[in-house]
Parts: sequence; structure tokens; C-alpha cells
Amino acid sequence: MGDLFIALIHHPVVNKRGNTVGSAVTNMDIHDIARAAISFGVKQYYIVTPYEDQATLTEQIMAHWTTGAGGKVNPWRKAALERVRVADSFETACSQIKDSSPAPLVTIATTARAAKGAVSCGTLREKQKGNASHMLIFGTAWGLTWDLIEQCDMILEPIKGAGDYNHLSVRSAASIYLDRLTNGR
Amino acid sequence: MGDLFIALIHHPVVNKRGNTVGSAVTNMDIHDIARAAISFGVKQYYIVTPYEDQATLTEQIMAHWTTGAGGKVNPWRKAALERVRVADSFETACSQIKDSSPAPLVTIATTARAAKGAVSCGTLREKQKGNASHMLIFGTAWGLTWDLIEQCDMILEPIKGAGDYNHLSVRSAASIYLDRLTNGR
Repeated sequence: MGDLFIALIHHPVVNKRGNTVGSAVTNMDIHDIARAAISFGVKQYYIVTPYEDQATLTEQIMAHWTTGAGGKVNPWRKAALERVRVADSFETACSQIKDSSPAPLVTIATTARAAKGAVSCGTLREKQKGNASHMLIFGTAWGLTWDLIEQCDMILEPIKGAGDYNHLSVRSAASIYLDRLTNGR
Repeated sequence: MGDLFIALIHHPVVNKRGNTVGSAVTNMDIHDIARAAISFGVKQYYIVTPYEDQATLTEQIMAHWTTGAGGKVNPWRKAALERVRVADSFETACSQIKDSSPAPLVTIATTARAAKGAVSCGTLREKQKGNASHMLIFGTAWGLTWDLIEQCDMILEPIKGAGDYNHLSVRSAASIYLDRLTNGR
């Protein structure tokens, strides 16, 4: 498998009525998913937001933990946050990855909803060929828009638990998908 | 497998110097782990804190989402938070579970550190016999004290990622362990 990337989308996502909206960046999404990302060998974790104030806030949080006081107190957090990037759109994140590497980029949507043609993490592992880079894409709020999901090369199956409840936090979902991709199934 | 329980310990845990301390309850720990718990069929999720103000805060948050306005806005969150309990100690949580069921209770510590005799989730699944209840125990701060780990009947192996980084959030770790226990490995 080539390099692995993550993108956390704050626009376009849907609200609980299915309308396309933008969401606010939350501190815990940055930290928890960055820690999971470095644990499972993700090269870069993109926070995708078109809103300048949200991008600035994200960069301020990152700076505190990478070049500021936070990183001195907790070097493990510094290492995790150093993998975070900010992009103003999904397309910008993809372009930056493509610009940094000659490897092809396979984009993989995640969703808690049933989607035609969705594959398991096990199947995704088998399909990985050569040195292609892969980017896992997660939605905040009530998830990615169908338009964005359909732009992606692949879709991962929802995480199946013990029943029908499928309202995991995006932090939990990202952690579980990364574990499944790394450790099989 | 019998009933599955979770406990999130806020005392006794260790700080980064290895000293025994108590930690504050955080809102995101309640929500994220409750959502993972209900997703993977956990019967009850215990927030363990000996501090009265922290117990009161936890109960206020729970009330907002179960009997208050939050539950009306988001019934899925209500369902998840209804599985949360507060106990003043690990021993109290165990006693409450034992009082509610004649099934034996197997306590299972989790740790990011190497521990003698630790087993994988796959081995734990194989060892489950009859109708015994199982309780997974997670530490906040820098993890459970060794004293508490040694009180438990079993220890789970640390979550192995792609390298040596082992500083997942407790929210990520709980989600991954529950997925591994439910879906194999």
C-alpha cells in the first residue's frame, strides 16, 4: 500500500434533514483523529473547511501544539498535530496530495448510510495495487453529501455494530476504519 | 457471550509521571463512548468518579440528553446516554452489576502499556464461556494504575497500529476494542 491520507470535510456535508450545510471545526476532531492517524501510519490528515475564520482557528490550535507551548509539554501530541493540514476544499486537498507525489490517488468515501457498490475494509486492502496513495474521506455533521460520495473512487461499507444503531462519532468511526484497514477485516 | 459493560475510570489513574491522580470528567468522553457502547451492544457504561461535583456534572449532562431538551432534539443521543451510569468507585460499579444479575462478572483491564499475560480480543472472545458478564475497563489521563489493572481478571493487549506511537485517545481506544470484540480479531 502506498501513502494513506485522511480528509475531514466540514463543507459540503448534510444536516439531519439532508440539507447541504457547513459545520464548525471542533478541537476534539483535530486531536483525536490526528492521534489515530499517526497511530495507524497516516501521512497527512486534512481539515477541509472553506471558512476563513475556521481555517485560522485550526491553524492557531495546530501552532499551539507544534511550535508553541503545547508541544513542549506533550511531544506525542506535537508529533500527531504535525500531520494535520488545512485545505479550503476537497479538491484542494486532492491537488496538494497529487502535487506532492507522482503516485495515483484513490479517494475513498465513508458513510453510515447504505451505498451501492460499497466495499469492506478487507476488500479495499485486497484491491490496493502498487504504490497508489489512498485518501479516506469523513464527513462531519450528518455526513458527506451524496454528490461528494459519488465523486470518490470507492465507498467503504458502514461500520456494523451489534444492532441497528449507526450514530458513531466521526472520531470513533475514523479510529475503527483505520484499525480495520491496518489490522485486517 | 453474556452482557457487556464498560467502565471509564477517573480515579485511580496515573499522570505522565506515573503518580496516582484523579481526572475530571469530560463531556466528549461521555458522548463518544456512549455512542460506541450502544453501537456495539454494551448494556451499561459506567462513569467512575469519587468526586461529588464531577458526579453531579455527569448527571446533569445525562439528564439534558435523556429527560431534557437534548433528547427531544436528538433521540439517538438520548438512547445512547440512557446507558450511562455514575459510580463512585470501580468496586461500586462491579457491585451494582453483580446485584443486577446472577451471572459471574469478568473484569478486563485495558492499557497502552505492555502487560504480562495480556490477551488479544480474539483470545478473549474464545475464552468467553456461558453467560458470564464482562466489563471492559478504561483509564482516563495516562491510564489505569497497575494496582487496578492487577485487580482485574484479564488484561487486553495494547492496540497495535502501524508503528510505535501508542497515544490514542481513550475515545478511540474504546471504539476500536469494542469493534474488535464484536467483529473478531
